[in-house]
Amino acid sequence: MKVNVILEGSLRGPCESTVVVVDVLRATSSAVTAFANGLTQLEVVESVEEARRMKRENSELLIAGERRGLKPNGFDLGNSPCEFTENEVKGKKLVMTTSNGTRAIKRFLGNRVVYLAALLNYRFVARSIVESGEGTTIVCAGTDGVPCLEDVFCAGSIVKELMCEGYRIDDAARIAYSTYSTYEFDIERMLKKESSHGAYLERIGLGEDLVYCARMNIHDVTPFSQGKRFVLH
Amino acid sequence: MKVNVILEGSLRGPCESTVVVVDVLRATSSAVTAFANGLTQLEVVESVEEARRMKRENSELLIAGERRGLKPNGFDLGNSPCEFTENEVKGKKLVMTTSNGTRAIKRFLGNRVVYLAALLNYRFVARSIVESGEGTTIVCAGTDGVPCLEDVFCAGSIVKELMCEGYRIDDAARIAYSTYSTYEFDIERMLKKESSHGAYLERIGLGEDLVYCARMNIHDVTPFSQGKRFVLH
Repeated sequence: MKVNVILEGSLRGPCESTVVVVDVLRATSSAVTAFANGLTQLEVVESVEEARRMKRENSELLIAGERRGLKPNGFDLGNSPCEFTENEVKGKKLVMTTSNGTRAIKRFLGNRVVYLAALLNYRFVARSIVESGEGTTIVCAGTDGVPCLEDVFCAGSIVKELMCEGYRIDDAARIAYSTYSTYEFDIERMLKKESSHGAYLERIGLGEDLVYCARMNIHDVTPFSQGKRFVLH
Repeated sequence: MKVNVILEGSLRGPCESTVVVVDVLRATSSAVTAFANGLTQLEVVESVEEARRMKRENSELLIAGERRGLKPNGFDLGNSPCEFTENEVKGKKLVMTTSNGTRAIKRFLGNRVVYLAALLNYRFVARSIVESGEGTTIVCAGTDGVPCLEDVFCAGSIVKELMCEGYRIDDAARIAYSTYSTYEFDIERMLKKESSHGAYLERIGLGEDLVYCARMNIHDVTPFSQGKRFVLH
């Protein structure tokens, strides 16, 4: 069984039959938190306008997301995982649009199963992959077309779990695993000081999100795609 | 001063005023060796046919390169750095075409200065960058559009030198430096066993090249571009 890593969402690479999308800051951290708090369904869309249109057609939908890190006008929620409380999301359906995570997810949705991973649930995702009995390709969303440290770190954390299960790994997976090994004992500092997107979020007052997104394996959920929507196992 | 890394030649990324192209296996290792052995000028071209045409127009040119790792028909030399001996190249002009390194080099040639780096000369390249007084972008050629371990490792070795000089680094440079730190004490094994392109070269009988390309800082040369050709400092 093989595990490949795509270090940035627009890169090519061999693609296995399941795909894991990682956007630690913050799309997949928010999605994982929402499902852990009782969300029933997630759909990702490309544009702010499309999310608003869906809300007009069905006022029970929640719409959430960001542009430049901040909540668009008229949205129910932004992209801070801490906003996706049980009170807000339990039993609800969510439409999300973000700058980078959305694009990476949409690119791989189709006839493959896509899992959503963050540090919050990486070990549970690895277990889901092993149970699927399939090879997997881990896609790091990146930021504006450039690889970012925290996504490659998170990919490396999943690679480590799969290596222990005997998966064969490609060059990019070795690079991701090296990144994981370098920062595994100093994750919060990595997000706040070394990740350029993390440093940006800290500057615009979203440092609290970094503390939360740095927490490992606090949610035992693996959101996965059914057609173009995400649900829980 | 900043140093960025582009983990694979087709990725976008911020571009500083000087560019370093790395293709450890084997284009830049061969180019560095040729200059160390007295080559006076290098031009890279996209196609085998273009190289043959230039040879027909000027029989004193050497033409060298590979497709699928092997020397094309009618070429003077392949892409094994060990072929570029003083006897073959001293005082000569060379035209080279390879599968991956050529594309990465051509993409960045233009009004920027491009340096060629391999493990064979990485510290000397770092010194040239520092002397230039400019920021730099290190481009890993990769293999067929996919990042490769040895190029990211070599980029990381240059990043390490520049960090010691106080350069600021981006996320991809941190990823490269992590890769360097993981493999720095076991380079030959990395090239032979962990790099997928290295393992391919070993399988087609070119293992000797891997032993050579793993040697660090044996050549004090930095080939750099003047217009579309490369010369030595």
